[in-house]
Amino acid sequence: MAIQHNVGLSLIFRLELLNSNTTFGKLASIIGEAGGDIIAVDVIRVTRETVIRDVTINVSNRDHGKQIVSALETEPGIKVINVSDRTFLMHLGGKVEVTPKIKVKNRDDLSRVYTPHVARVCEALHEDPSKAFQLTIKRNTVAVVSDGTAVLGLGDIGPYAAIPVMEGKAMLFKQFAGVDAFPVCLDTKDPDEIVKIVKSIAPIFGGINLEDIASPRCFEIEERLKEELDIPVFHDDQHGTAVVLLAGLINAAKVVGKKLENLKVVVVGIGAAGVACSKMILAAGVKNLIGVDRPGILNRNEKYENEMWSWYAAHTNPDNITGTLADAIRGADVFVGLSGPGVLTVDHIRSMAQDPIVFAMANPDPEIDPELAEPHVRVMATGRSDFPNQINNVLCFPGIFKGALQCRARTINEEMKLAAARAIASVVTDEELSEHYIIPSVFNKRVADVVSEAVVEAAYHSGVARRERWDAGSSNIF
Amino acid sequence: MAIQHNVGLSLIFRLELLNSNTTFGKLASIIGEAGGDIIAVDVIRVTRETVIRDVTINVSNRDHGKQIVSALETEPGIKVINVSDRTFLMHLGGKVEVTPKIKVKNRDDLSRVYTPHVARVCEALHEDPSKAFQLTIKRNTVAVVSDGTAVLGLGDIGPYAAIPVMEGKAMLFKQFAGVDAFPVCLDTKDPDEIVKIVKSIAPIFGGINLEDIASPRCFEIEERLKEELDIPVFHDDQHGTAVVLLAGLINAAKVVGKKLENLKVVVVGIGAAGVACSKMILAAGVKNLIGVDRPGILNRNEKYENEMWSWYAAHTNPDNITGTLADAIRGADVFVGLSGPGVLTVDHIRSMAQDPIVFAMANPDPEIDPELAEPHVRVMATGRSDFPNQINNVLCFPGIFKGALQCRARTINEEMKLAAARAIASVVTDEELSEHYIIPSVFNKRVADVVSEAVVEAAYHSGVARRERWDAGSSNIF
Repeated sequence: MAIQHNVGLSLIFRLELLNSNTTFGKLASIIGEAGGDIIAVDVIRVTRETVIRDVTINVSNRDHGKQIVSALETEPGIKVINVSDRTFLMHLGGKVEVTPKIKVKNRDDLSRVYTPHVARVCEALHEDPSKAFQLTIKRNTVAVVSDGTAVLGLGDIGPYAAIPVMEGKAMLFKQFAGVDAFPVCLDTKDPDEIVKIVKSIAPIFGGINLEDIASPRCFEIEERLKEELDIPVFHDDQHGTAVVLLAGLINAAKVVGKKLENLKVVVVGIGAAGVACSKMILAAGVKNLIGVDRPGILNRNEKYENEMWSWYAAHTNPDNITGTLADAIRGADVFVGLSGPGVLTVDHIRSMAQDPIVFAMANPDPEIDPELAEPHVRVMATGRSDFPNQINNVLCFPGIFKGALQCRARTINEEMKLAAARAIASVVTDEELSEHYIIPSVFNKRVADVVSEAVVEAAYHSGVARRERWDAGSSNIF
Repeated sequence: MAIQHNVGLSLIFRLELLNSNTTFGKLASIIGEAGGDIIAVDVIRVTRETVIRDVTINVSNRDHGKQIVSALETEPGIKVINVSDRTFLMHLGGKVEVTPKIKVKNRDDLSRVYTPHVARVCEALHEDPSKAFQLTIKRNTVAVVSDGTAVLGLGDIGPYAAIPVMEGKAMLFKQFAGVDAFPVCLDTKDPDEIVKIVKSIAPIFGGINLEDIASPRCFEIEERLKEELDIPVFHDDQHGTAVVLLAGLINAAKVVGKKLENLKVVVVGIGAAGVACSKMILAAGVKNLIGVDRPGILNRNEKYENEMWSWYAAHTNPDNITGTLADAIRGADVFVGLSGPGVLTVDHIRSMAQDPIVFAMANPDPEIDPELAEPHVRVMATGRSDFPNQINNVLCFPGIFKGALQCRARTINEEMKLAAARAIASVVTDEELSEHYIIPSVFNKRVADVVSEAVVEAAYHSGVARRERWDAGSSNIF
């Protein structure tokens, strides 16, 4: 059962009308006959021969919009220049800007932020480049780096097509956590080049958020950058998802009154995100974790060409069971899906232990239709915003980077990710906690602060924070 | 005669004081005895044993500040944590930020700027990457790229030390022309790598401002990038300076009532900026141009290893004269210095034609002390802000990029640079024009608009503008 989302669209038609041929009445009647509903009319430009108008029209869906274009184009005096909508209009000219923190009001200001006095600041940085954390935007700035090879569910659509996602991410970094983030969309897919480029542009950044890079390349790129850079490198598709999933799992276990270490958890879809989620689940104390992918249950009797699967078979499945998902899921407490629609059936759920917990995170269509699953599960979460318990990594990345930048962490380690997951879970109080509320809303303003504070503590505790605790951020001029 | 600039400094001393040893009275008397003037005292942190205070002290200069540090450090209960000043404080945390253009207020906004609806915008860009000029920040965003090898007059101080200059430039881009600019400070000096990196990060940018890259590497990097990218690439140290110099020259010639094509112009210092200035001067119609550098007058009797000098000898000096600066300057109308202090003498100026025009642009110390030169010149300009007629490329780069971005120019060509120079000159009206006012102030708010409009016209005229003139920036969703 696919869920319908046709809520009607407002489209803006930019039309060039020949003055001699086309009255507005004629235009209105063509649109009306085609079933369109005119909302607004604006004049953009008038010449002697033509007038360009923006006509906003309510249509029932995209195809209806295209029908109206066809209807308009049959009329000789009308040319459809383009058709836009609110989503596209929100993207015009991009979604972020680079703004000065202070206004240069006079010559004295100019001489301090630019030549000649800026030279003293440059000299201080030349003597001690680590002062960039105090005297430059490095202190609070993250690169959102993508090569455009795995954008959303769209696959390898290239660096230009990746820009709107990276800009969106930059918006959310700033709005939710005050972190400055700049989109870096790379016109190369070569891991060596990507590593070299990111290293070369790193001086200005306090952290690197890798995004939408296809697997398995994303592992190599992340591993090498982590090794070669002294600032946090975090592939959000893996670790952000894993942190939020764990937050949900912590609270789901609470709801059903089970302990993490006693859970049997089945993960389906052992790709980049699946491995990252599984590592977090293990780090949180789960012992009986079983992975399933195309070859069935990953186990130590088989040899896998896929390195992730070999790693997985070696580090999970303590009883070394074999078989299919049906075999794995029997008696399981938790299902975690990072695969595709239709993978999980009602029969599977019926075979699970009491109070089944289902994380069906495939996007846009979960492993099982939530409405179908609902009568049979105790707790259910998806990646979707139109059902309760959305696993959305917007809950993680702003706060985890805010914390890492605040304490000048040289990396984001397991301890910090665990702290972030527990912090997200903690935002839902014991009184509020229920089957339908295991994870806070992305608009909950407390999340980023709670996460960043926990991450800072974990960074100091694990010895990766480089900032003196009492340092208010000054810098020595001598 | 060096010009004194000691205007007194406010320094902020961050001090850790042992509670048991140090009263504020004692602290005040140490500072007073050392000649410091306490302006303000703030408490930063208090523990049982210590208090950390920020003490703002007026001192006469940096050395005086250091003396006060020494005086304080002789006292056992006082530890100087650091010393800061207003310039450094203005740099804390950097000078620009990345801010969202719209606030994500609710789930509907989030679904448009980010998943799931952003996917439609991504798909449109996948079909036609050139739509990035409409639907992403590419439309208005410039990379300010440096490898830190020739920063201000400080030389090769590296990418970290270059950041404050690039951030300052980004501030000015936005404040003066509304252009978004992001600092890209590269941790490599290899021209091949720089070219590859800039090409790889180019998808998000509408223009590349190269900055503070050492010669002769800067030529190769700029040439290759111009060839391989379809967005403007502009090495500001060369072309920005050249544009503003020409603006000054146009107005200086007006002041003395001479025509550009009749001028004899001598340029001293044939490096990157010298060549760029000379090319602009030639493009503007000057015929008798003579270059002087270490080998004396550059001429066609000699063979030069330095490629710039060979080019210069071949393209200037129509009478192929030889000798020293003294020989070149005799009878010259204009001196253009891009060299160092002391190069030009009063005797040189005395040997020039009537109404000598002197552009002494070496920084921070001009080729001749302006006060020494004044009685002998008719028009004088320098790179300094504390004399009339400052040649400052802040007058050029914001407006020239604004224009180039506005019309989606694929390059910034000679015609656009000439238009920019004439536009800058035009801001000074005939009524205002005088020996002491040939160039507008950097704070003149009209400059960037006048420049950008002229640049747009020149771009359309020369066929490098890619934007339809009437296009209001919409984009087709079908």
